[in-house]
Amino acid sequence: MTANEEEMIVTPWEVAGRIDYEKLIRDFGTQPLTPELLQRIRKHAGELHPQLERRIFFSHRDLDWLLEKYEKGEKFVLYTGRGPSGPVHIGHLAPWIFTKYLQDKFDAKLYFQITDDERFLYHDNFTMAEPQKWAYENALDLIALGFDPRKTRIILDIKNIDKLYALALKVAKHVTFSTAKAVFGFQESTNIGLLFYPAIQAAPAFLESELVGHNVPCLIPAAIDQDPYWRITRDVAPKLGYLKPAQIHCRFVPGLGRGGKMSASLPETAIFTIDSPEQARKKIMSAFTGGRTTLEEQKSLGANPDICSVFSYDYFLFMKTNEIEELRYKCLAGDIMCGECKSLLAERVTKFLIEHQEKREKAKDRFEEYLFNGKDY
Amino acid sequence: MTANEEEMIVTPWEVAGRIDYEKLIRDFGTQPLTPELLQRIRKHAGELHPQLERRIFFSHRDLDWLLEKYEKGEKFVLYTGRGPSGPVHIGHLAPWIFTKYLQDKFDAKLYFQITDDERFLYHDNFTMAEPQKWAYENALDLIALGFDPRKTRIILDIKNIDKLYALALKVAKHVTFSTAKAVFGFQESTNIGLLFYPAIQAAPAFLESELVGHNVPCLIPAAIDQDPYWRITRDVAPKLGYLKPAQIHCRFVPGLGRGGKMSASLPETAIFTIDSPEQARKKIMSAFTGGRTTLEEQKSLGANPDICSVFSYDYFLFMKTNEIEELRYKCLAGDIMCGECKSLLAERVTKFLIEHQEKREKAKDRFEEYLFNGKDY
Repeated sequence: MTANEEEMIVTPWEVAGRIDYEKLIRDFGTQPLTPELLQRIRKHAGELHPQLERRIFFSHRDLDWLLEKYEKGEKFVLYTGRGPSGPVHIGHLAPWIFTKYLQDKFDAKLYFQITDDERFLYHDNFTMAEPQKWAYENALDLIALGFDPRKTRIILDIKNIDKLYALALKVAKHVTFSTAKAVFGFQESTNIGLLFYPAIQAAPAFLESELVGHNVPCLIPAAIDQDPYWRITRDVAPKLGYLKPAQIHCRFVPGLGRGGKMSASLPETAIFTIDSPEQARKKIMSAFTGGRTTLEEQKSLGANPDICSVFSYDYFLFMKTNEIEELRYKCLAGDIMCGECKSLLAERVTKFLIEHQEKREKAKDRFEEYLFNGKDY
Repeated sequence: MTANEEEMIVTPWEVAGRIDYEKLIRDFGTQPLTPELLQRIRKHAGELHPQLERRIFFSHRDLDWLLEKYEKGEKFVLYTGRGPSGPVHIGHLAPWIFTKYLQDKFDAKLYFQITDDERFLYHDNFTMAEPQKWAYENALDLIALGFDPRKTRIILDIKNIDKLYALALKVAKHVTFSTAKAVFGFQESTNIGLLFYPAIQAAPAFLESELVGHNVPCLIPAAIDQDPYWRITRDVAPKLGYLKPAQIHCRFVPGLGRGGKMSASLPETAIFTIDSPEQARKKIMSAFTGGRTTLEEQKSLGANPDICSVFSYDYFLFMKTNEIEELRYKCLAGDIMCGECKSLLAERVTKFLIEHQEKREKAKDRFEEYLFNGKDY
C-alpha cells in the first residue's frame, strides 16, 4: 500500500493514511464550518482569512456559542501550542498565522503552551535539555510572526508548572485511567508521566478564568489531531465550574512527498523555518507533483493539482485566493509545467524564509517579553 | 472476625489486620535492624534512641551502606513527610521524634514533604483548600518538635511544584502503568493524578543531589506502609544517575481501641495534638487494655500488656526503657490495675499536650522560616 491507501490514523502522536476530513467530523463529533458561521466571522473581522475561505480551518465546536458571547460584548482568549521536539517547519506556521488573524481581528489575548514536559516524556532518547532547547527555538518562530507582545503569553510547561499544577490536579481528579485509555489509547507500557499529561494540556484553557477570577470564554485554534485533549478538557470543564473551551480545527499541511502531512521526521519533505533558501529550493525541486510522465502529455492533458504537493503549499500558505484559482486552472489546462511551478514556489518560499529569518533573529531580543509570568496581563 | 484476626493489609492507603512485622520484612524484601547495626548507630550517636532499643524502628534498606559512607566522612540528608488530610495525632509524631534524633546526632539536613496534592487527589470530597489548610496545621506540629530551622525545609507539594516537577518527570519516564499498577494496586478507576503522584513522592529523595550538583546519600525514616514508594524510587535512581535512598522503617503506633493502628478516621481512639487535656483523658479512660474482667482476677493472675493500648502508648512514646520494663513487670504480676495505669498515662499525655500546644503556638511565627525556597541551604 502507498501512504495514500493506508488506513487513516489521526491521534496526537500519529497522522497517517489519506485523511478524510468529513469522516473526522463524524468520528470526532465536531461541526463543519458553515457559510453562515463564516459570514458572521467576516462581519466582525472585516475580512475572511484565506484559511477560512479555503476551509483549511474546516471544523469547530461551539464557535457559534463563542460568537454569540462576543456579539454580546464578552471577549474571549485564544489558546494553542506546540510540542517542541525539533525545528518548526512551514506547515506548523499555518495555524499560528491564522491564530494571529484571530488575535488581531478580535483583540484577543493568546496563551501559547510549549509542551516541553510531554516531549521529554514521549521521546525515549530525549534528555530534558532537548525539548527545552527546541522550546526556545520554536518560540522565536512564533514571535517572528508578529504576535502582539502585550496580548501574547508563552507558557513553558516545565518553567511555568507552578501556574499550571493546581489546575491540572483539579482536571486530573476527574479523569480515570479507563477514560484516558479510551481517549488516547494509553497502554500498560505507557509511562505515568504521559498518563498525567492530558491534565497539563487542559489547564491553560482555564488559566485566564483562574487569573481574573471569573469565567472567560476560550477558543482553541489547532490541527484536529489534538482533539482528544479538548474532548477531555470539555468533559471536565463543567465539573470544575469552568466554561467548555470552543475549538476551531484545521487540516494538516501536506509534505513535499507523496501524501502524508508535513512532518519533521521526514526532513527531506519538510521546509524548516531555519532552512537556507538553497536547502528549501532543493527540497522543492525534488517535490512530488501531479504532473504527467512527459511534457507533451502534460501540455495536451493537463496535470492534477489535487495530489500535487507544490500546489498544496501555495494553497495552504502562499497564494491569494484569485491567484490560486488561476494556477489551478492553468495546471488543469496544461498551460504550466511542473518545473516552472516549482521554481515559482521556490521564489516565494525563499522570499518568505529570508524575511522570516530576519524577524526570527530580532525575536531573540524580545523572547523574555512574551514569557508568561503568572499574572493576568 | 475481629480486627486482630483480619487478613493483614499494609499499603500507603490502608493498614488493617494484625500486623506481622517479620512477614513484612520478608514480603517487602527489607532487612531487620541487627544488634551490630544498632551498635554502629550508638557509636556515632552517643546513645541509642528508645525507638531503636524497642525496635519500633525495626527494618531498613542499605542503612549499613549509608553508615559506611558516613564513617568515611560523607554526610547524608533525611527525607520524610506527611499526607495532610486532618489533624496530626500522637502516633504520627513518633517517627518525627525519631527523625529529629537522627538530625541532631548525625547533623543531617531534613526535607519534609507535605503531600497536599496527593491528599486532594485521593479524597473525593476534598477541595484544594482542605489539604492546604492541614498542610499548615501539620507543619506547626513538626516545627513544635524543635527541628533545627537551619537544617530543615518543609516542602509543600503544590506550592513547591516548580522545584519538584522536572525531577518527577525524570522519574515518571521510567515508571510504566503496568509497574505502578503492580506496586500500588492502581485500577482502571484510579484518576490520572494519583497515577503520576508516585513520581512526585520520589523527587525529594534526589533533591539535595540536584541542588548541590553532586550525589548526596539520603535516608528515609518512615512507617513501613510507605515502602512501595521507595521501591519505585530505588528502582529508578540508578537509571537517572542518582544514589538509591536508604530507608529505616517503623511500626504503626496502635490506637486506643482493640488492635489496629492509630488512625485519624477513628477519632475516638486517636489523641490529636490539638485535643484538650480533657478530651485526651476521656479517650484514655475509655481505652482498650489487657486487663482481666474483675480486679480480684487481675490481682491474682496479672494482666496482658502485649495487647494493651495504654501500655503500647507508654511503650511507643512516653516511658524510658527502665520505666517501661518495670511497668511491664508490675502489669504481668497483677501489681497495678488498669484504672491507675490509665490515670498515669493521662497525666503524661496531659503534660505532653500542654507543652506541645505551647510550642505549636510559637511555631506560627516561625512557619515561613522552615519553608523550602528552592535553594540549597
